[in-house]
Amino acid sequence: MTDTLKLASRTGRMHASEIRELLKLLSRPDIISFAGGIPDPELFPTEAFRSAFDAIMTGPEQTSALQYAPSEGYGPLREWLVEYMARIGVSCELENIVMMSGSQQGLDYLGKLFLNPNDTALVTWPAYMGALLAFNPYEPNYDRITLMGNRPASDFSARAEAAGGEVKFAYLSSDFLNPTGETLTLAQRNRMLDLAEQLDIAVIEDGAYQELRFDGDAIAPIQALDIERCGNINQARTIYCGTFSKTLSPGLRVGWVCGRRDIINRLVIMKQAADLHSATINQMATYQVARAGFDAQVAKANAVYRHRRDCMLAALDKHMPAGVTWTRPEGGMFVWVTLPDGLDAAELLARSLETEKVAFVPGRPFFADGSGENSLRLSFSCMKDDQIEEGMMRLGRLFRTAKSALK
Amino acid sequence: MTDTLKLASRTGRMHASEIRELLKLLSRPDIISFAGGIPDPELFPTEAFRSAFDAIMTGPEQTSALQYAPSEGYGPLREWLVEYMARIGVSCELENIVMMSGSQQGLDYLGKLFLNPNDTALVTWPAYMGALLAFNPYEPNYDRITLMGNRPASDFSARAEAAGGEVKFAYLSSDFLNPTGETLTLAQRNRMLDLAEQLDIAVIEDGAYQELRFDGDAIAPIQALDIERCGNINQARTIYCGTFSKTLSPGLRVGWVCGRRDIINRLVIMKQAADLHSATINQMATYQVARAGFDAQVAKANAVYRHRRDCMLAALDKHMPAGVTWTRPEGGMFVWVTLPDGLDAAELLARSLETEKVAFVPGRPFFADGSGENSLRLSFSCMKDDQIEEGMMRLGRLFRTAKSALK
Repeated sequence: MTDTLKLASRTGRMHASEIRELLKLLSRPDIISFAGGIPDPELFPTEAFRSAFDAIMTGPEQTSALQYAPSEGYGPLREWLVEYMARIGVSCELENIVMMSGSQQGLDYLGKLFLNPNDTALVTWPAYMGALLAFNPYEPNYDRITLMGNRPASDFSARAEAAGGEVKFAYLSSDFLNPTGETLTLAQRNRMLDLAEQLDIAVIEDGAYQELRFDGDAIAPIQALDIERCGNINQARTIYCGTFSKTLSPGLRVGWVCGRRDIINRLVIMKQAADLHSATINQMATYQVARAGFDAQVAKANAVYRHRRDCMLAALDKHMPAGVTWTRPEGGMFVWVTLPDGLDAAELLARSLETEKVAFVPGRPFFADGSGENSLRLSFSCMKDDQIEEGMMRLGRLFRTAKSALK
Repeated sequence: MTDTLKLASRTGRMHASEIRELLKLLSRPDIISFAGGIPDPELFPTEAFRSAFDAIMTGPEQTSALQYAPSEGYGPLREWLVEYMARIGVSCELENIVMMSGSQQGLDYLGKLFLNPNDTALVTWPAYMGALLAFNPYEPNYDRITLMGNRPASDFSARAEAAGGEVKFAYLSSDFLNPTGETLTLAQRNRMLDLAEQLDIAVIEDGAYQELRFDGDAIAPIQALDIERCGNINQARTIYCGTFSKTLSPGLRVGWVCGRRDIINRLVIMKQAADLHSATINQMATYQVARAGFDAQVAKANAVYRHRRDCMLAALDKHMPAGVTWTRPEGGMFVWVTLPDGLDAAELLARSLETEKVAFVPGRPFFADGSGENSLRLSFSCMKDDQIEEGMMRLGRLFRTAKSALK
């Protein structure tokens, strides 16, 4: 017997996601929860998936669905994605797409591909918490992406060098960032590319919420702007992570990475060594459902989410006390709330669960430097109108009380 | 544009699997291939899976099959595995099982959990090539497990220290090792534990071929012997990696790791950060099929594989020239052939593909030190009697010619 086994140093950086730990507590039916950032299961194309699985398991691919398959993924789905990427402005070929078990796996693999311990990853403040959790085991430092043009590139590289490594990439979401719901302007996307060029680093563009646009015009992905600048995806520095989790189904774990050939080849080799390939039948079923009605499914989900976002913004307007501010996202699943300085959202969550029976996610874990204690994330994706109204009323009450106690 | 992006040092250790690259060439119908180590797709319980997917997608779990799920995996399948592990001698509870996307992912995660660069992993000579590929990105050194008791533990630790790290674990397959087909005796399993205790390291036991026993009595897994010694799985140093890939279906990517609670908790946290969870519907379908007829499916496969093993051993006896030796496995998918010194199996493969149209896997990539050039792996799992007879005849001819040219 042994009391402890000797682990790698990197395990010191591995912690449970506060959100997922929190979600375990939220199955209590008396809680109104704006915490989980998950799609509304009532919107899943369940019948289309049922029929896809049935067609696969009774058709000519029934055996290949169950057998080992190439690490790069299911060909027809990758071909569909070549067309999809073209539609959002990214011209690429089959060799530029590798399938992943969700875009989360893409983030893990890209961390593994780029990061030595003490290297620097540039991220936004706040950033998607899951990306920080995926990168952490590779022991990077983080520095803050600022897209105001007010910090010279040399400052980033000097700081990275002082920390014992190099800047390896910038990671960000262009559209409807989890947690803020905010979108980068075209000018900000171009400034991101300018900075990446000056530092000669990769840009990892997280497109998880890309399709969930309720209003306003789509803006070209950074990868598309990059290809415009350099002429060809195989010379571009931007690597795009996509997923079907927000549009079709998260449980099937089907995502992809689109990028230059040399990087995709390395990801394929990495995947071969790490899990051989993502499950085939899930890719086949996703292909069937996407081909038959991706756009209709997205339109249906966006209509519902748009309505809920509107409800939430209206309820916030009505119930929040002065001094509380929030984002007005054009898409996605989240509104980001900033409380007056001095209030701590984690403390307020504990109080909220007890007295108001309302859940949200405190903002701090989204900040690589542990700041953001007075911010919080609200998800509107799974909530009905009356729950949103009631929940914002209760939160407004809680925040008003807390604010008064500050003085 | 940029010519190259700056990657992590570990990428220097990432190479494509020679087997999988080879397999791409082997779709040519004129080749008799003993190269791929894959289950015969004719044995898949296809109808049982069809019916399982249909039941899931029309039943009460249709929505949870498509939604995000806990990182530890699907509860009923984990419960089934608790009973399964008990049947093979390992007494454990639900908290001791985490589902993985194949046991390959378990190997990747365990490498990530244990290995600092320059640490030492003990492996057999030869070892499962996929394990070496999974561990390599964590930049270990390898030392050879010898179970003859003729090398003191201090020798392993001194060598590891000289290489700049510690011995972290021993990795091995107890039953029907890929590539040799060989099984560890009870005495060897106990010597492995003795050595691990002396070094105070983990043992990673790869049970991928566990169920494919054709004759002889099952021997207790190392993990079972470990629990016998220390009284409780939560104190045991052995971590067991299992998979449904060899028994039910590899394409669904359903495997598991069974081990002490503190290690399983860490793997769950790691999985949360790396891919959230393995696809739910595949775990649900595997549960349905396993529950309804795991033993019958294993018996059916073993009857076929036993016959093919017998055919291969008979054909080797008949066709191989003197000086060529091979293993006589009691199960699994492989026979391991050793050629006379001076012959290079990789060279012979090139010749074989050209003149004899027969494929196999050269032995060298299975050796952590790059030795084993005169060895090769033959898989009998997918070959019919006449192909085995014809193939061994041709290989015998090739090896006889090569041997003569040696003089």
